[in-house]
Amino acid sequence: MALIVMKFGGSSVGDAERMKRVANRVVQTKREGHQCVVVVSAMGDTTDDLIDLANQLTEQAPAREMDMLLSTGEQVSVALLSMAIQQFGEQAVSFTGWQAGIHTEEVHSKARITDIQPARIHRALEGGSIVIVAGFQGMTASGEITTLGRGGSDTTAVALAAAIEADVCEIFTDVDGIYSTDPRIVKVARKLQEISYDEMLELANLGAAVLHPRAVEYAKHYNVKLVVRSSFNQNPGTLVKEEATMEQGIVVSGIAYDKNVARISLLGVPDKPGQLATVFGALATEQIDVDLIVQSGVIGGLADFSFTVSLGDLQKALQVIEAIKPKVEFRAATSETDLVKISIVGAGMVSNPGVAAKMFETISALGISIQLVSTSEIKVSCVIDIARQNDVVRALHTAYGLDTSEQAFVGGPQDRR
Amino acid sequence: MALIVMKFGGSSVGDAERMKRVANRVVQTKREGHQCVVVVSAMGDTTDDLIDLANQLTEQAPAREMDMLLSTGEQVSVALLSMAIQQFGEQAVSFTGWQAGIHTEEVHSKARITDIQPARIHRALEGGSIVIVAGFQGMTASGEITTLGRGGSDTTAVALAAAIEADVCEIFTDVDGIYSTDPRIVKVARKLQEISYDEMLELANLGAAVLHPRAVEYAKHYNVKLVVRSSFNQNPGTLVKEEATMEQGIVVSGIAYDKNVARISLLGVPDKPGQLATVFGALATEQIDVDLIVQSGVIGGLADFSFTVSLGDLQKALQVIEAIKPKVEFRAATSETDLVKISIVGAGMVSNPGVAAKMFETISALGISIQLVSTSEIKVSCVIDIARQNDVVRALHTAYGLDTSEQAFVGGPQDRR
Repeated sequence: MALIVMKFGGSSVGDAERMKRVANRVVQTKREGHQCVVVVSAMGDTTDDLIDLANQLTEQAPAREMDMLLSTGEQVSVALLSMAIQQFGEQAVSFTGWQAGIHTEEVHSKARITDIQPARIHRALEGGSIVIVAGFQGMTASGEITTLGRGGSDTTAVALAAAIEADVCEIFTDVDGIYSTDPRIVKVARKLQEISYDEMLELANLGAAVLHPRAVEYAKHYNVKLVVRSSFNQNPGTLVKEEATMEQGIVVSGIAYDKNVARISLLGVPDKPGQLATVFGALATEQIDVDLIVQSGVIGGLADFSFTVSLGDLQKALQVIEAIKPKVEFRAATSETDLVKISIVGAGMVSNPGVAAKMFETISALGISIQLVSTSEIKVSCVIDIARQNDVVRALHTAYGLDTSEQAFVGGPQDRR
Repeated sequence: MALIVMKFGGSSVGDAERMKRVANRVVQTKREGHQCVVVVSAMGDTTDDLIDLANQLTEQAPAREMDMLLSTGEQVSVALLSMAIQQFGEQAVSFTGWQAGIHTEEVHSKARITDIQPARIHRALEGGSIVIVAGFQGMTASGEITTLGRGGSDTTAVALAAAIEADVCEIFTDVDGIYSTDPRIVKVARKLQEISYDEMLELANLGAAVLHPRAVEYAKHYNVKLVVRSSFNQNPGTLVKEEATMEQGIVVSGIAYDKNVARISLLGVPDKPGQLATVFGALATEQIDVDLIVQSGVIGGLADFSFTVSLGDLQKALQVIEAIKPKVEFRAATSETDLVKISIVGAGMVSNPGVAAKMFETISALGISIQLVSTSEIKVSCVIDIARQNDVVRALHTAYGLDTSEQAFVGGPQDRR
């Protein structure tokens, strides 16, 4: 008998039929002899509908009331799922976040879980019930309802799994697991049997939006065994854990891409101490995240340097740069969009020289110039022209031996709440 | 400065425009210098939509999960109303039932309020906020969410008014106040300025569905001053309080009718002790409410007697009667539907002989036979053929001097949750 946390997203419980399918799956798991704690998101479009209502009433919805409003979505889901499970003849009980003992910071719309008091969940499990917990929400010490922000239900599931010492936390999605790259681009993408938390974090941050990074961080911190699998079939999915078993000959696990990238270059920057600190300090003050940073060599006392920001931050970043021009005394600032950042990710990379070199060669062989490069222990990222994205992803997938003969199973778009 | 509880039903907050109108009204009241606690129901059809969802999943929804589900309706309303009020520039804070300190029995779908701990409401009021409380819901000592059943939001408002010692509890509806009878039948029905709790109870129980009887009982018990008024205009409405000031020459305050009535007659019942106890004991065991009971005189050792039950209970009541036939040994049982119970209600009746007689005369003058009669200190009820209902209501309204020259203001149908 195992203690299992099962998490279902909003599209998995989008209507009564899907709700019944989820109920059936939970009931089967229970009947295999396991104890089940189920975490669910709000049904399908519920959250968007509630936001629409709020927008009809206010220009800037107060965060406290928004949490009060949106948390009802998950409460509806847990009540209905409990009914559906009881209809199958199994005992079930639903809990809101506060009833499940999920405590958070005193922050609205993106609170972090501070601790979980699972006594009530344990009592219900011991009484033979399937326990259903509203994802995405908690309560502060002063009795306010809070929500956890994007990826909140994943985080609820992982945090609960840690608190009740579950044997595994299963995240049910529209896809079969974690793939070596986006199967919409590479039809022969490989489903990974295992992946490490760190690799998953790099992939999640880079846009392979199956698991929210916060949930992966939480899982890594508390060493929660995660499984990402399909809610439509019984395939085993992908296991995310501390150290993945290395597959024979595979040093790169996956290839990710991120289109949300813009480049800014400062040209002719006088070479004196503190220049980089001035530029990036000013950007940080305005809450602008800077990703890749590259500085050229110094010629004639002048240097060029480039960095990337998200598309949404580009205009603000350029304003910041303009404001500090008198201080930094650079010659000109330029920017470029229509770029993509392509990354190879793999825990095996660190002990295999030549992995990065193969990436550069593969891209060069396609006649594409690399605009920016950055490397970490388990990742190499290159920024290139967006028009060539798919060519590069496919070529890299082949070059690192990731192509399989099987066709990936891919469902509809997965919501990420 | 007064402390005012304001209650708005589901149709008053049915969409964003109506929600804004309610917000505006509350803000105006606050700006007149009052402290406001607002109780709201779920928006328009929300509750029905949630029940539909449940019915798609289960044949018999468990009451606990139904409460979990339905209580979200009011939570959505309070969050949105708080946003709408803040948009007008006033401070506001919404509370669920449990946040407002509303404690109930450990019973689902029709819990009674056991006590209210209003510390959090007082703190918010002292901080200058308008407080918005979800009607219809509370929490048990073991942390379960409960709902209060029909008329629950009225009860929440009155119970809160008692707990915080409010100066008045205003119930906003689609009509201008309490009328001397249904203005759809009698165009010259009179709006009552005042009415006593007891009269209101008789009228509410008899189908003048503006205030739920439970809320009126609660108001009477805690001596809460109630005002029933329109959410569409500033008219003063009807004041419900302990002793209404007698209006000149008015002994009958109102005329009510109830179509939900069926008559059962037992014919040829042997006259021996305990017969009535046997019949009504058996009906009570089956939870069948019996209203009027009339026994004829005894002729030849045999009596006839008749009583009324609600239409929904008729078949079950007849089965009960059949089952006890061997014991009671009556000759035959008959039943009749297509009836209406018409009642005159007035606290002044007790000290005015001839009030009942005038009712019988008025009905006789129309050539209508009275099937059953019952009287109490403030009420006389007659059961007659439903086809003549409107004729009788109009004739009585005129006979007791209730007609006015003004036309009643009547809005759309009012929900009674």
